[in-house]
Amino acid sequence: MMSSSTEGADKRAPLKVALLGCGVVGSAVARLLSEQADDLAARVGVPLELAGIAVRRPNRHTDVPAELLTTDAEALVSRPDIDLVVEVIGGIEPVRSLLLTALKSGKSVVSANKALLAEDGATLHAAASANGVDLYYEAAVAGAIPLLRPLRESLAGDRITRVIGIVNGTTNFILSRMASTGAGFAEALAEATELGYAEADPTADVDGFDAAAKAAILAGLAFHTRVTTADVYREGISGVTAADVASAAAMGCTVKLLAICERTEADGEELVSVRVHPAMIPLSHPLAGVGDAFNAVFVEAEAAGSLMFYGRGAGGAPTASAVLGDLVAVARNRVSASRGAGESAYADLGVQSMGDVMTRYHVALDVADRPGVLATVASAFADNGVSIQTVRQEGRGDAATLVLVTHTAPDAALASTVERLAQFDFIRRAGSVMRVEGLPSD
Amino acid sequence: MMSSSTEGADKRAPLKVALLGCGVVGSAVARLLSEQADDLAARVGVPLELAGIAVRRPNRHTDVPAELLTTDAEALVSRPDIDLVVEVIGGIEPVRSLLLTALKSGKSVVSANKALLAEDGATLHAAASANGVDLYYEAAVAGAIPLLRPLRESLAGDRITRVIGIVNGTTNFILSRMASTGAGFAEALAEATELGYAEADPTADVDGFDAAAKAAILAGLAFHTRVTTADVYREGISGVTAADVASAAAMGCTVKLLAICERTEADGEELVSVRVHPAMIPLSHPLAGVGDAFNAVFVEAEAAGSLMFYGRGAGGAPTASAVLGDLVAVARNRVSASRGAGESAYADLGVQSMGDVMTRYHVALDVADRPGVLATVASAFADNGVSIQTVRQEGRGDAATLVLVTHTAPDAALASTVERLAQFDFIRRAGSVMRVEGLPSD
Repeated sequence: MMSSSTEGADKRAPLKVALLGCGVVGSAVARLLSEQADDLAARVGVPLELAGIAVRRPNRHTDVPAELLTTDAEALVSRPDIDLVVEVIGGIEPVRSLLLTALKSGKSVVSANKALLAEDGATLHAAASANGVDLYYEAAVAGAIPLLRPLRESLAGDRITRVIGIVNGTTNFILSRMASTGAGFAEALAEATELGYAEADPTADVDGFDAAAKAAILAGLAFHTRVTTADVYREGISGVTAADVASAAAMGCTVKLLAICERTEADGEELVSVRVHPAMIPLSHPLAGVGDAFNAVFVEAEAAGSLMFYGRGAGGAPTASAVLGDLVAVARNRVSASRGAGESAYADLGVQSMGDVMTRYHVALDVADRPGVLATVASAFADNGVSIQTVRQEGRGDAATLVLVTHTAPDAALASTVERLAQFDFIRRAGSVMRVEGLPSD
Repeated sequence: MMSSSTEGADKRAPLKVALLGCGVVGSAVARLLSEQADDLAARVGVPLELAGIAVRRPNRHTDVPAELLTTDAEALVSRPDIDLVVEVIGGIEPVRSLLLTALKSGKSVVSANKALLAEDGATLHAAASANGVDLYYEAAVAGAIPLLRPLRESLAGDRITRVIGIVNGTTNFILSRMASTGAGFAEALAEATELGYAEADPTADVDGFDAAAKAAILAGLAFHTRVTTADVYREGISGVTAADVASAAAMGCTVKLLAICERTEADGEELVSVRVHPAMIPLSHPLAGVGDAFNAVFVEAEAAGSLMFYGRGAGGAPTASAVLGDLVAVARNRVSASRGAGESAYADLGVQSMGDVMTRYHVALDVADRPGVLATVASAFADNGVSIQTVRQEGRGDAATLVLVTHTAPDAALASTVERLAQFDFIRRAGSVMRVEGLPSD
């Protein structure tokens, strides 16, 4: 049953939507725009009409009306009848130019493009602001999980101190498989590729580029500061070994690729640190249970305490859900001649270099079992000002495995310690070295 | 470092805020408005000034400026200089009258009042709409967890099928203690009271009234339909016994008080069902791990899939965080002379009666161990059209415990079955009878 507001709405002129890109996400957007047309019209106040779709090869797209397809994206975003532009192409150019054209011609933009937003969001935000239109991009981070809107709006009255999340499904699938089967990285990657969780070229995922772009976007919103990809310290998971995963399990931990954004301080100046790297986290930590290709993000705020958001971080339909949520929002704004909140970068905090970030390390070493070894190892830590929290030594004949977990220390001091250890002749084999997160702070 | 936008902002006239109520939440709101003043001004565009606080006993409030206190709430919400009203008093009257006065005199309202919103949200929404102002109430459900904004905005382009959550911290604490210690309800309630998790009169929490109000609000937003407290089927947890909890554990489950909102269908008509009752859920279900006084809500949507939101559902600071997030939003709208999305009730779906809702039951019976008992019990289920999924019988001398879990069936059929069973003379003692949720559907 539709109430009178809908009947009234349908008499009003529709808002015309241009879709840039029609791959897995784009075709889901097109499908939902059609399937949910009545509901969307009721929620917006006027119908949303898909008026054009820019693609590279029109003959490959048989699931959308052929008359909507065009290869001329530039002409589409310039069309005067278009009100709203949805971009699901990805990459920096030509998308940046297309979106700037759209914004400058007064169209609101919904984008799922994490790379572009993290690289040069400021330029797009400035264009949106100058032209009084909206730029929304919930789908750029963690797919269907409502995350940007909560950070930008729900927590706008709070002081966020930390955002820590699993924001890349491919690497989480790989690490989850390594943990459950004992497989090495290459084997788990092959499985991920076979199942469609990893792309033919998995670099963006496994080397952490995708997660780093998302971390930059999250940090910017959380700390009201411009953060770009270049500000993010990044390590991928291709160096994570089955031994690392086993070593983590032995200490009641599991290995996850984490995006960590923190509010920090040095010499009385407030800073932010933003990093993506594999880390061991305790099995009791809620993020440890996030398996397969799922995403989850923990947010810590002074008044709200700890919040967690969990769901599917990728895939056509989930990402399309986020795109359509934004599309309804910018369409409502268009109908009411208003504009959502724009970029908030007033805090303008500096970015702490990785060497200064306080972390803690897990270090496993295969050493010759002879007098003085532990003392020498312990001195290497002490000489770098690093305090050791736990030590475990297991003898195996004339060799032993030494497992140490440090207290927090500047990352540079921990790295120097590991370098120093590598020079000792009694080290038979450098074992697992990895950061540890999520332990009670010391 | 503040950017020019803030410096500019502070020169503009502040927005004046009236606070109704200054208990645990209200005093946290007052404190944060003061502590975060610079950040709030930067985020809104103009400063927020706390201009009056209505309380019953001014001399009890020594933590806020005395000159702001008044006992005349009606005069405060009518003051022409007030722009925004925050209500954290609770209850239906006099709050409804106060908020209607505020809305009708052009003030936007932020409320944490779940009882009022669930009882008569429509009247308040109509007044907000008629006067072109905002009515926000994120804090009314699940405290600091951003939940209403994601439902109302992030998922506005999706079709939500189910919302299932733990939305009352007091009962979750009690049930968690019963599960971990084996305590009975009375003992766990006493502990909750001692620790401040339960109020002196715990009725609203333990009898499910609080959760039912929240369920009504969630269902209304999720299904774009007006749902009031009267539409919600409600059972509390005072009847949950240590035997129920043990029985749940024996089948790999735990007992939780759940708020369940579902999109359903009967005779081709789309309906919603909204209910609050204790239920056994599998330990593998993500809600099973939500302990202590935490809240968590699962949302299932057609495109987005399953999402979970987790955090602190109550307490002064977490609730104040949600209030301030809303306050920033309505203040931004005021600055830009716009209005957020109002009530969305266009779908106007009917509410399914509890007897028609498809549920499944766990039934444990102590029976005399003699021939024909199982056949008679099984017939009682079959006669009511209820199919049994699993049966487990444990003999103990001349008696036996019979544990059955049904397939889903109309709740009325299950209730009739249980009534029929109670009449058999071979039932020594009616054991645990409880609904089961979160099993794979059949």
